[in-house]
Amino acid sequence: MNELQVSPEQLFVTTTLKAWDLWLGRITKFFDGLTDEQMLQEIAPGKNRAVYLYGHLLVVSDAMIPQMGLGEAKYEHLREAFLSKPDRAVELPGSAELRESWREVHARVGSVFAELKPEQWLAGHATVSAEDFAAQPHRNRLSILLSRTSHLGYHLGQLMLMTR
Amino acid sequence: MNELQVSPEQLFVTTTLKAWDLWLGRITKFFDGLTDEQMLQEIAPGKNRAVYLYGHLLVVSDAMIPQMGLGEAKYEHLREAFLSKPDRAVELPGSAELRESWREVHARVGSVFAELKPEQWLAGHATVSAEDFAAQPHRNRLSILLSRTSHLGYHLGQLMLMTR
Repeated sequence: MNELQVSPEQLFVTTTLKAWDLWLGRITKFFDGLTDEQMLQEIAPGKNRAVYLYGHLLVVSDAMIPQMGLGEAKYEHLREAFLSKPDRAVELPGSAELRESWREVHARVGSVFAELKPEQWLAGHATVSAEDFAAQPHRNRLSILLSRTSHLGYHLGQLMLMTR
Repeated sequence: MNELQVSPEQLFVTTTLKAWDLWLGRITKFFDGLTDEQMLQEIAPGKNRAVYLYGHLLVVSDAMIPQMGLGEAKYEHLREAFLSKPDRAVELPGSAELRESWREVHARVGSVFAELKPEQWLAGHATVSAEDFAAQPHRNRLSILLSRTSHLGYHLGQLMLMTR
């Protein structure tokens, strides 16, 4: 099938994936434009540092895989530093290591997403019971992707306030 | 049809609308919790005031109607103050008036969205040519909704930095 003959279901998926790619591209470009020193700057006085948000988003992207029931997380060991605990509570990995992990995790989720058929996007996610899912079929994999896309936007908005 | 028998296309739409409702609900709750005085506070030193973002999001929501080719904008007269010009360039309407308009515009877009059938979500939006749309069918109404949902997240992230 060429793009003109694509099914409506596939077009819904493609449109949603384009939105994910767009926001991911924007925020990746932002972080790529920061020096390692700027990574340690706060987004606003007394608030999170850029490096904390970078690791935070990396861990959240990684966690989509098990949340969608599609495999194991790979950066479980970064969860405490970037998710369970606030910035400055735990010593963080260096920016070079995080930049490498950022590329790896987003290449991985991108490949996993590209493989999913429309009906697989509508399957229940791993944290909803079969009973709840029967009554609330919108609690599917697609809803996780939508949530994480806007979550990228949420933190990009904050990062744009940084004075560099 | 009950929810269990809903078509895949309709479920894609429902899931996307739930995401819009979720972020809209979050940010509406945030603004509803601000006093008119707090509305005039900056989100961070030297940055936009909350009231500016409130009007900005109101105008952007309103503009979805013509962008989707579904009617006319109603708050065109607020575009200059909240979109074309930065905060503090133009005198802004009072918070009471904006709160009323916020409710009106979001009730209106909510009704319009609820009427659209799945295939109507996949129709090209008003700012894409027929030729471009044929080659890029993801430039549809759904893509506008996805973009505006993450845009709500973008500014909610900024608002959450306010110290009240």
